[in-house]
Formats: sequence, C-alpha cells, structure tokens
Amino acid sequence: MRMYDIIEKKRNGHALSEEEIRFFIQGYTAGEIPDYQASALCMAIYFQGMTDEETSILTDAMAHSGDTVDLSRFGTLSADKHSTGGVGDKTSLIVVPTVAALGAKVAKMSGRGLGHTGGTVDKLESIPGYQTAMDGESFLAQVEKVGLAVVGQSGNLTPADKKLYALRDVTATVDSIPLITSSIMSKKLAAGSHNIVLDVKVGSGAFMKTPEMAKELAEKMVTIGKLCGRNIAAVLSNMDVPLGHNIGNALEVKEAIAVLKGESRGDLREVCVALASNLISMVLSLPLEEAEKRVNQVLDDGTAYEKFCEWIEAQGGDVRYVRDLSLFPEAPIIYEVKSPVTGYLEAMDAEVIGLTSVMLGAGRETKEADIDYSAGIVLGKKVGEAVKEGETLCTFYTARADAIEAAKERFLSSLTFGEEKPAEAPLIYEVVR
Amino acid sequence: MRMYDIIEKKRNGHALSEEEIRFFIQGYTAGEIPDYQASALCMAIYFQGMTDEETSILTDAMAHSGDTVDLSRFGTLSADKHSTGGVGDKTSLIVVPTVAALGAKVAKMSGRGLGHTGGTVDKLESIPGYQTAMDGESFLAQVEKVGLAVVGQSGNLTPADKKLYALRDVTATVDSIPLITSSIMSKKLAAGSHNIVLDVKVGSGAFMKTPEMAKELAEKMVTIGKLCGRNIAAVLSNMDVPLGHNIGNALEVKEAIAVLKGESRGDLREVCVALASNLISMVLSLPLEEAEKRVNQVLDDGTAYEKFCEWIEAQGGDVRYVRDLSLFPEAPIIYEVKSPVTGYLEAMDAEVIGLTSVMLGAGRETKEADIDYSAGIVLGKKVGEAVKEGETLCTFYTARADAIEAAKERFLSSLTFGEEKPAEAPLIYEVVR
Repeated sequence: MRMYDIIEKKRNGHALSEEEIRFFIQGYTAGEIPDYQASALCMAIYFQGMTDEETSILTDAMAHSGDTVDLSRFGTLSADKHSTGGVGDKTSLIVVPTVAALGAKVAKMSGRGLGHTGGTVDKLESIPGYQTAMDGESFLAQVEKVGLAVVGQSGNLTPADKKLYALRDVTATVDSIPLITSSIMSKKLAAGSHNIVLDVKVGSGAFMKTPEMAKELAEKMVTIGKLCGRNIAAVLSNMDVPLGHNIGNALEVKEAIAVLKGESRGDLREVCVALASNLISMVLSLPLEEAEKRVNQVLDDGTAYEKFCEWIEAQGGDVRYVRDLSLFPEAPIIYEVKSPVTGYLEAMDAEVIGLTSVMLGAGRETKEADIDYSAGIVLGKKVGEAVKEGETLCTFYTARADAIEAAKERFLSSLTFGEEKPAEAPLIYEVVR
Repeated sequence: MRMYDIIEKKRNGHALSEEEIRFFIQGYTAGEIPDYQASALCMAIYFQGMTDEETSILTDAMAHSGDTVDLSRFGTLSADKHSTGGVGDKTSLIVVPTVAALGAKVAKMSGRGLGHTGGTVDKLESIPGYQTAMDGESFLAQVEKVGLAVVGQSGNLTPADKKLYALRDVTATVDSIPLITSSIMSKKLAAGSHNIVLDVKVGSGAFMKTPEMAKELAEKMVTIGKLCGRNIAAVLSNMDVPLGHNIGNALEVKEAIAVLKGESRGDLREVCVALASNLISMVLSLPLEEAEKRVNQVLDDGTAYEKFCEWIEAQGGDVRYVRDLSLFPEAPIIYEVKSPVTGYLEAMDAEVIGLTSVMLGAGRETKEADIDYSAGIVLGKKVGEAVKEGETLCTFYTARADAIEAAKERFLSSLTFGEEKPAEAPLIYEVVR
C-alpha cells in the first residue's frame, strides 16, 4: 500500500477503505508517512469529504493510536461532556457535579485555555490547592467514591490526533467536518465514557459561525458516536454572546457556584440544565422531561453544590474559598467601561470580548504564558438590554494598568448599538440525539 | 504575510495576488516555507485552479527562481521546442536542425529519459563523441556560428520548479493544469527563447489521455506564453501509437536521419513538419503556408540533413556514424515478435510499448541506471494495418536474452486486434496559437 495512491484516491472523490485509513493513521503516528503527504490528504478530504463509515474508521483508528481509559468498572454509568469552546463557558464546572449528584460517574480530562476561549483546568486551578494531575488509579478511585474527578490531559492519549491537529492548524485544513468530528470524537472514545453530551457552540464566539454548520457537525458527531457504540446527544447553543456574565478564571468559578447554589437563573443555568438533562437521561435511561426535573431539583436544593464542594475537597482544593467567595484574591485594578451612547445593545462579538479578557491577563497568548486568575471581565449589559450614555457596560478586573486603554477600545469595538430592541436569538437552537 | 493565509485564500477559491505568489515561490525555494504547507497549497490549487493572471505570475516567479539564459544577442530569431513527452518521440532531432537551416537560432537544453519516454540527450549520446555538457559561452557561440546547440540541463535553472515538481510527484498534485503549465513554461522562459513551439501529446502513451485535456493544457500554455511576452504555438499530436517505427536511442537517431534526408514520409515527418512550420513562421514572421513550403524544401533538398551533420560535428560527435549508419554497433540479439492472429491491428498502448523497450535495455528504470544505446524496438506494423498470423509485428534489439520472453508477453499485451480495419485517428488534432 502506498500513501500516494491513498491521496490520489481521495482526491478523485472515492471513499477510502478501512485498510487504507488505518495504514495512514498508523504510518503517520509512527513517523513513517511524512507531513507533506498527510497535509495533501487533509486538503483532499477538505474538498471531497468522507462518508460516515470512513469518518467512523478514522475516529476509531485515532482513538486507538495511543492509550485509552478503561471505565468498564462503571458499567453504563460513565458520562462525559465536551464543548466545542466558547467565551465565558463554565458549563463543565456546573454540569459535571450536577450529573454526579444524580448518579453518573464522570472521569473527565479537560484542556487548558488558548486564544479567546478559557480552559476548565485553568478555572479549577484558580481554587488554591486543586490538583489537576493524578495517577490513573487515584483518578478512577475518586470517580468511584465521589462520582467525579476532573484532571488535565495526560498520558499518551490519541497521539495521532495531536500530531494531525498540529499539522492541520498550519495548513488551513482545520475546518473540515469529518476531520473535526474525528478529532473530537477520537478523544472522547479514548476517554472511555459510555454516555457523551456535546455542547456545540454557534455564533461569533464559536468555531461554527452559523446554526447550519453547527448542525452538520453535531449530526456527524452523533452519528459517529453511535456507530462507535456510545450513547450521545449534542446541544446546539448560542455563542454570539458570552455565556453568563463573567469571563476570567476565578470570576467564572464564582459565577458557576452561584448557579450550583440555585441563586442564578439566566442563560448559563439554562444551557447547563439542557446539557445535564440530556446526559443524565442517557445515563439513567430516563425520559428527558424526568431528567430535567431531577437536574433542576439538585440545583435548587443544594445537592449539586454539595457535590461540587465534595469534589473540590477530594481533589485537594481549599474548600473554604468555595464556601466563602470573598476569600478569592481580588484584582488590584477594577475599571468600569461606560457606554458612549444611549440605545439598545444590538450585538456583541464574543470572540473579541474573549480576546479582550486575554489582554487583561485572564488567558494565554502563547502556550507558555502565565495566567492571572483574578483577571477578567464582568458584563453589565448583554444583547437586547437598554443602555444609557455613561452607564456601566462592563467591569474590567486586572493587574495591567497599561492594558486598560487598549482593552477598553477593543471591548467597545465588539459592541453594536441600535435604537430599537433587537429580536431575541434562541439560546438553544436544537438538540441532536 | 503568512503562508497559512495564502493556503486558506486559495482553498476558499480566491485568486492569489502577485505578492502572495512571489512570497510563496521565494520562501519555498529558500527553504523557509515547509513542504507540508506547499503540498497543501498545491492540493488547494488542484481543486480551485488558478486564473491566467495567477498562472502567469507563478510561471514568472518560478522562471526567475534561479539562473536564466540570456539570448538577447539573437534578437527575435531565438527558437525553442518542447514536447510533453511520448514514446518514439525523436522530433527534436529533426525539428531543431530543420529550423536552424532556415535561420532560427536554437539554444536548446534537453532532458534525459526516465520511465517509458526517452530523452533527447540520451539519443544524442548514442552518437560517439557527442558532448552534452558545454560552458555557457561555448554554447551560445555555437548557436551563433552553427545556428543550434543541444545540451543537457545544467546550472541552477528554475530550482523552484525542481523542488515543487518533486513534491507534487509524491502528493498526487501533478495533474493540475495551472501547475503543469507553470512547470513547463517556467523552464521555457528561463531558457530565454523568443519563439516557442509546444508538442502536446495526446493518447495512451502521453500524460494527457484525451484531446479535451490536451487542448485545455495547450490553450493555457499558449496564453501564459503570450502574457509573458513570447511568440508561442502548440501542436496537439497523437500519442496513442508510438511516433514513427523505431523506439530506442540509436534506432531513433537512424530513423530521424532518414526523415532529415527526405527518405521517410510517414507520421514522424508529418508531425515534424507541423512543429517546424509553426516555429519558423513565428521566427521569420511568415504565413504558415510559406513556412511549411520552406520546411518541406530543406527536408527534401538535403539542407536540413547537412545542418544536422554540421551540428553533430560542432558538438564533438563522430560524423562518420551519421554519414554511414551501418557503423552504429548492432544489438547482439535480434528477435522478431510474430503475430498470433490474422486480422487488423486495432490499437496499441504506447506507454506499455515504451516500458517494453526499457525492459530490453533502451531506458532507465532508475535515475542512475545505464542505457544500452543499441537496444530497442522497431515496429513492423502500426494501428490500422492488416496482419497475418506468423507475420512480424516488431523486432526486438537487445543484449538481454533473459528479458525477451517477458518483453514479448508485455508487447503483445499492448496490442488489440480486430476483424475490421479501424477508423483512422487524426495524427494532428489541432494547432493552438
């Protein structure tokens, strides 16, 4: 078998065989197939696509290119959640303890933030003492005992995906539905959960800019998940506007705790309820309505919050911070951005707002950069709200005095004002199951 | 400027700017742009194509990526000829002295054979003493004095094309019209001639399998040549069948000499007359009819043959061989392949016949292999001819006794016999000017 023939076959619009796909993934992972042939194949796939069968084989081949996590001891109770990434997206902090409180077993590996979106691991590390590295057995033992554990990605999971994604990232071959699907799903398959809920973000702050694109991706991921023998559902949620009001690590933990305590009822809770309900309905084989009822109950009666505290404590976090949010160190500079006009907030560019928070120290511009856990933005107004000239649009939290002017300019550039109240966009477009 | 953005722009179907194309070629030649980005761009070009303007800039950028030959001393008399490659294609040996005999100045660099097609330089080296390496000034001095010189490719001409072609060859991105065009035309531009005739081969023994594909390529090359300020014409000629009867280096030299002496009138002479007439009509600004008259005249009156002898002698070749063909060493084994059936020869696969001649020693299987100049095939029958069982279909000339059986099997597999005389295919499909 020759890589040349595989590239040519795909270029000519034919479906690759299982043998060909596995030959490519094994050879590429082993360094026997050079980058220049892999990138040519990715570009051919960009143009010619892949059938569901091809995508499913590719996903499986990548999932088995390195270590896999064995969650068989949890039977059909294992559950995982994945977001395609958004701004102010702290849903994992809420959904994971909520479903654990209802009996799911969540052994979750999360990423760090890069660019305009934050990472769950960074957010958790804003709680002093929280350990994001655990050995495999302690990790699973905690899941068994507490119902959940969230650690950073470690070990040699899906090396094929790591190598291929890095290549796609520099060859303009990232936005191909079968390649995105196999990248995301191979990691989820390797992570071993039987039940998976996907949060597919749509809009200015997301990778998928339109509901149509997001739906195509969601359907493909759900199809591939099922073909690979998993229970899976995908929630398409709005990311034209940051989710909730807080952007930045400790700020997001605080907002998540408010939802977990049943104190907050906005868009953030709504998306979390949709994700948790869909996940727990698969885990416990419940009708969605019943699942939703139970999710709302554990959020309202404090059970989810107690599960959160138990989890943080089990993983070494100082639970006093979680119990008393005023203990979190406050940013040295608190700066309010005032509205230059009177009218309605018509649109926000969530990606630009995410990048603004990075300027304030809340994220990483490069992989090696340090994060200021106290830095970030709290939105005072969101799309659809009326605003008066001079009223606070948002508050910056930062240690970087010299970044404020540019950040303010950037933040304001992300907003569009109008004279009339804009039509309301849906928060959840659709659930694909 | 970033290579990533250039790949993405082409992938999305947009035309690249002059600056972007030159950035790519300069960066790739200098080794600053990696192969994996170049191959992704080539695949994007394969799918999205290039406008004439883009192709013309790409061609120019590649032509100027290394040394160029300055033929300005010959004014508008400089002439060059290029074939896209075929089996039994000895037209350069005939066309070049013919147009030189009529006043054109031909400073030609030719390639060696690889795979199923032979190379002009190899054919010339079958004449003892012929020197294919000359320093630049001697080369041009000979063109000035004799009217022509033919040497092997040397120096640092179009390094961008060399590097990019090698990459395309292993990434299934060769057959893209703008990429083929820029590859061929950049070499012709760098070689400096003001007038260019292209022999675009069509059929089983050629890269372009159909007249439609060949026409598309021919039109693109002519357009690009004109955009780059050259006179140019392209002759689309049949390569379903080998050209002439002889395949193999010394065998082809002998057949070429027969045409140059006016002794042979078949398909080979006809294609050579078309190429030479189109070229000389541009060089001397003559109507095509008048050019054709002059070409036939120098072939019939011995002037072209005398120019050939003068050229070979000037370049160190032993002209006694040219004057007395019996001096060429004969292959130790001469083997006649007999027809297994009675009927008509309906079709031949020229590529398979070319590969058969390589088995007999006439070509190279690898770049380093030696050539047996006396080896090859002389066809006794060509498509359309009647044949009787036991009659000679062709004669093998070889030193490889152990190759004969397999070569015979392969040769016979290239033939299709029928009961009726097949319709005649055109020898020259079209001339694009």
